[in-house]
This record gives sequence, structure tokens and C-alpha cells, in this order.
Amino acid sequence: MKTPLEGLRILELGHFVAAPFCTRLLADLGADVIKVEPRQGDPVRQWGDMVDGHSLWWSVHGRNKRCVTLDLKSEKGRALVLRLVARCDAVVENFRPGHLDKLGLGAEVMRGVRPGLIITHISGYGQDGPYRDRAAFGVIGEAIGGLRYLTNHPPGTSDLPPVRVGVSIGDSISGIYAAFGLMAALWQRDRVGGDDQARTVDAALTESVLSLMEGVLPEYGALGKIRAPSGGGLATAAPSNAYPSRDGCWVLIGANSEPLFAKLAQVMGQPELADMPCYQGNKARVENVAALDALITQWTRTLDADELLARLGEADIPSSKAYTAADCAADPQYIARGMVRRVEDGWFGCEVLHPGIVPHVPEAPGRVRWTGPRIGAHNDEVYGGLLGLADSEIAALRAEGVI
Amino acid sequence: MKTPLEGLRILELGHFVAAPFCTRLLADLGADVIKVEPRQGDPVRQWGDMVDGHSLWWSVHGRNKRCVTLDLKSEKGRALVLRLVARCDAVVENFRPGHLDKLGLGAEVMRGVRPGLIITHISGYGQDGPYRDRAAFGVIGEAIGGLRYLTNHPPGTSDLPPVRVGVSIGDSISGIYAAFGLMAALWQRDRVGGDDQARTVDAALTESVLSLMEGVLPEYGALGKIRAPSGGGLATAAPSNAYPSRDGCWVLIGANSEPLFAKLAQVMGQPELADMPCYQGNKARVENVAALDALITQWTRTLDADELLARLGEADIPSSKAYTAADCAADPQYIARGMVRRVEDGWFGCEVLHPGIVPHVPEAPGRVRWTGPRIGAHNDEVYGGLLGLADSEIAALRAEGVI
Repeated sequence: MKTPLEGLRILELGHFVAAPFCTRLLADLGADVIKVEPRQGDPVRQWGDMVDGHSLWWSVHGRNKRCVTLDLKSEKGRALVLRLVARCDAVVENFRPGHLDKLGLGAEVMRGVRPGLIITHISGYGQDGPYRDRAAFGVIGEAIGGLRYLTNHPPGTSDLPPVRVGVSIGDSISGIYAAFGLMAALWQRDRVGGDDQARTVDAALTESVLSLMEGVLPEYGALGKIRAPSGGGLATAAPSNAYPSRDGCWVLIGANSEPLFAKLAQVMGQPELADMPCYQGNKARVENVAALDALITQWTRTLDADELLARLGEADIPSSKAYTAADCAADPQYIARGMVRRVEDGWFGCEVLHPGIVPHVPEAPGRVRWTGPRIGAHNDEVYGGLLGLADSEIAALRAEGVI
Repeated sequence: MKTPLEGLRILELGHFVAAPFCTRLLADLGADVIKVEPRQGDPVRQWGDMVDGHSLWWSVHGRNKRCVTLDLKSEKGRALVLRLVARCDAVVENFRPGHLDKLGLGAEVMRGVRPGLIITHISGYGQDGPYRDRAAFGVIGEAIGGLRYLTNHPPGTSDLPPVRVGVSIGDSISGIYAAFGLMAALWQRDRVGGDDQARTVDAALTESVLSLMEGVLPEYGALGKIRAPSGGGLATAAPSNAYPSRDGCWVLIGANSEPLFAKLAQVMGQPELADMPCYQGNKARVENVAALDALITQWTRTLDADELLARLGEADIPSSKAYTAADCAADPQYIARGMVRRVEDGWFGCEVLHPGIVPHVPEAPGRVRWTGPRIGAHNDEVYGGLLGLADSEIAALRAEGVI
């Protein structure tokens, strides 16, 4: 059975995180993604930890794509990219809004050679509006989306700044949204009885984050309420937090219901807590959460994480370590589902640890067909095989610096 | 021109956040989503702040869907849901894995009445594997995905626990992944030349989060490196952090390049900083980031956020407030793009503030056709209009408690 996106061809005019993440998802589900890079390569190839000059992240970020070089600013490069566009179902790009127009590669030009082309833009703020030309930075976009204000301890409890999520989460989320929007547009265009029409998908980092903000906007609009950060806990339920173990791990415990709290009190060896008025009922526990969390912390600090989790698990209390990379890599569920897998990568001469393919499609799951390729690794295959250029033409383009 | 998902019909057997969020995205882009609820309604209708007993979040979370009631556990309810399945392109559900099978609504049964049905499951850990039956909680899933370990200050700098992101981010991310996977499966099934085959989309909260973890897995696998939390900053570049203003806001400043740092030093009135060996070059700044951030903080504390941002903006230094709900609601770019919009909601007798439709499709953007409906609001329309039941049959089903 075919993987979901077998037969789909995507041209990536992207760099850094958002667009390449979007196309990784498409490639993982079987699409033929052709990534166009300048001759010096996408700068993301140098990001993160390297081994022998090769980025480990790139092994994942570039997997399953065909990588070609192309100077978009040269006239010959422009002609070549249009030949590629003509063979593709869609383009995914994340230059600054308007940049492709300046290169003579605007929507009309591309649709001139490929009618019905779906063009997917990813940007910081969107393709129009007063801020469209502002430089896009992930940390800024996440802040404007409303995320950074919330990744903090409650007002008045700490002088420390709100934390970053630790990965480029705004870029990734806008990348998934873009992949979703692209597939929605393709479904309408390509389905039996479809309209064969070109559509544009305009995904913005800020807006992608804002869209996850639950009731934050309507609650502000109707009540003037500003959602505040709640630290490690929940604003409306207790106890639910991350607690320190004796061996220095953080252990999440969610015991914010009457039966669960009673069980927790039991496991803590302090069953009387469940009967104290200050901890009876969720409302009382929320009001006295600081004292309650301090009591729980006092107990968790006496046990190593493994022992703590064993006791909580026996009592059926929702709990987990805050997984580190090592915990993720060792998790039996991830391993059973192929969500942590070892993949041969020729650059490193060994296997590299990859995340699996999300979402899982059991009838025809995608595969890691290959890891992040070298710069221009597929020039011959794409320019020769797909576009039909002769070896001599390819050699000439290479000599001229076009590819 | 048609919105991307006009003509698509989805049956939601979902509750809480993940599946309903997935179907909101589909409905926003034009799909006909029929949400099946028990007669007491989805518990999420009671979540968040309420006005006159109505949840403001629900106005957004339930928008654009048709809501019908149905007792899935009754034989008549089961028969009815299968009649709905027969009229739908896909099902989206987030019960515990195996629950629908127990109700006699497993994949084979559903595909018996609707061959080619795409079934989209969202769960905590996936539909198989040793942990599939564990209870799924967002905060636990995010911890297992590797997110919670990173939303913290650097080890050794604070005793406070790692923070929650402040919204159900794991649920939302798995919801977007599910929507993407569903559209991918539909494209392969429905396209001209497609295979008309049933596929299953199995999206897990933990795996959706793990998939965003950049180079975390390969770097651990090859180097044994465990990515550590970096607080408000970046581990590899400085200065980039959230800094406090005089009036108690957090202001993000990203000045982690030579020219930007020189500009910042200038704006701070301390141009000599850029020439000091301890701050010259990114490497030195990262090594001395604590002292550098303290200096910047000393300066930012002397100015209100507006003044601070004006000065930073003049110097073209990437910067922004950490937006609160109020800031999001007032943002000119969001307003210009329809990403913050006032929507009439009959329940509240006034307009409610909604986030817009993501991603934006300029040729045919989705609309908020209606806000979160009452329980069973579309029973007559769906059971009568779509399934063709007589009024008397509907009345009988209602009397028997089936709908």
C-alpha cells in the first residue's frame, strides 16, 4: 500500500527551521521533496553539535529530501527553478515576504509554468499587514504569540525571566500548520471532482502560536482577564506539579482529584492530609497550593526518582520523570513504536538516533529512506533524471556557478 | 472559490482538547464537522472562565461544528452512529485506545458501512505498544515528549520547578499533526488516480512533542549529550533573553550578533561594552552571559516597556514585549490579518473575541460561520436533514435517551 504522500512532488525554497521542518513531515510521509539550496548550503547545516564538521541535527532535518544547489539570483538559475516548478505540485518557502517576487519568482510567474500550483509561505508575521516586513526571529514570534508570557512562575514569586521552551517551537508549529494547510489545498485541487485551482497557504509563526491559546482571547475580551503564568502547576487544580527527587530529577505528579489525592497522601505516609480542611476539595487545595507543594516536595526529596515513580505507579497516580534526551532514547514505548530508531548515516560512518515518523500510519508508515544529504547530492539525479539535462549541460551550469 | 475543505465531512467522536482541536482546524477551513456528544455534553464545555454558565473557550473550541447528541453505549445509538459514519469521509476520535472496539465500533465495523474510511486516532501514547493503555494526561505526555525538562532555568541556578507552557500545548500539537495526517491520507485516497483505500492515522501526544526536539536525539546518541534547559536565554548565543522593564513587563531582546550587540551597547549609553574583551564575540558573551544579562537588566529596569521598545526599535534591534492577552488583542498586525476578530455569539448576547483561522488561505479563507453551539443544537438538522429520519423517529430517539 502506498504511503500517504507517494506521488506528491514538493519544491522547497526554504532555509533554517520552519519550511524545512514542514517539508520533512511531507517527505517522511512519502513525498518527493526537492530542496533548493545556494552552493554554500542552508546555514542550518552548521547548527547544533557537529561530528567531523557534520551537524547531527541535519541528519534528521534533511532526511528523505533530494538536495540540489541553485543560484536563485542568476538568470540561468531562475530559468532552472521554473523548470523544477513546472514538475512540482507545490512550493514551500520561507524567505522574507516579497523576496521571491524580487527574484522574478512571484506567484504569477510560477503559475505561468505550473497552473494550479499551491504556494505555501511561512513567515514570522504573514504575507501582508503592517508588520509583514519585520525580521522574523523565533523567540520574538513566540513572545508575540503569547507563549513566552506564560512560561514563567506566577507573578510575584520569582525575579527570574520567563523561560524559552528549549527548542524552536514556534518554527515547528508553523511548519506543521503549513503542512496541514498545504494538504488541505491539495485535496480540494486534486480530488475527483476537485477544482484544479491554485491556492496560497500563508502560515505565520506568531499566528500559529496564538491559535493554541485556548480561551485566552475570549476570556480577555469578555472579562478583561489576563491569563497569568502558573509556574510548574495548574492555575485551577492541585496538586499537579514537578517535584524534585533525591537524585536531582524532576518528577511530574498529577493528583488533582479527590481519589488521587487520597492515594497520594497514603503513599506519602500521611493519609491524614486528605482529611484536613485546608486540603479537602480542589478549591481548598488550590488556595493552599504553596504549603501543599512544600509538603509533597519534602517527601519527594527523600526518594530517588525510580523509587518514587515505582511507588506512585503502584498507586496508579499519574506521574513521570521530566524526560531528558537519555530518558527519551530508552523509553520502551518509543522503541516499540519506532519513534526512537537507529538509522545508518554514511557521513558519520555509524548509526544515528532519529525520531520516528509522526503521525504513524500503520498500513503504510513512512520510512527514513535516507538521512540528511550532502549539499547538491541530487544534482545529477534531479537535473539529469527529472529535467532531462545532458551531462554536458549540467557540467556547464556547475562551471558557471549556477548549480 | 471554495475554501480548501468544502465538501469534506468529518465525524468527531472526541472530547476534551486534542480531537476537538483537530476538528476545529478542519471546520475552520470549511469542512462539515459533526461532533457527537453524550447528552450531558463534552466536559470541555465547562472548562475555563464562564459567563452565565457558558464557557468562553467553548465559543472558539466548538465553532463551525454541528453538534449532535448520541448515546454511544446504547444499541440504537450504535446503529445511528454507523449511519453517520456511512455519510462521512473520516472519523476523528480520542477515546482511550480500544474503547471504540469495545463499543462495537471498531475499524472493521465502521469500514463495513463506509469502505475507505480514514480513521484518525489521537491518544497519549499511540494505539499499540506496552504503554498504550496508560491514562493520558497532557502534563505527563509533554514531560515524556521531552518538553518539560527544557522549560526550566539552567541546572544549579534555581530551585524552582520547570514550568508548564501555560496552555495544553501537547494536545494542540498532536491535534495539528492529526489534521495533517488525515489530509495526507485523504489526498492519496481521493485524488484523481488515487487508490480509494482506507488508512489509519495514529497520532500520539508524546510522539508529537518528541518530533519537535530538533537535534536532541541524534546529539545524545552520538555524543551522549543531554540538552539542558537554558532559562530565558539561548545556550549558544548572547545576549538573547527576556529583560524586566520599569513598569513590570518582560521585554525580549535579541542582540546576539556583533552589529546588533554594538547597537545595543550604544542604545544603553555604554558603547564601550562592545569593545571589552569579555563581551567581544559571541563565544565570550556566552561565557559571561550572567554578568552581561545583569548589566542589560540594570538598564532595562530604568525604562518603561514602551520607551524601551521605542529605543530598541529605532536601533533596529529585534525586540518585543512578552505579549499578554491584552497585547495580543491590541496588536495591529493581528487585527489587520483578522487573527483577532470579534464574533457575534448568541449565548453571550454580545461579540466574543476569537483567534482567526490558521493557516490563512487568501483566495478562500475560512470564516467563523458560527460559534460553539449548544448541546444537540444540530440534532434535527443532522438526524432529519442528513440521515432523513422523520420527526417522529427523532422524537422517539430523544424520548428514549438515545439522542
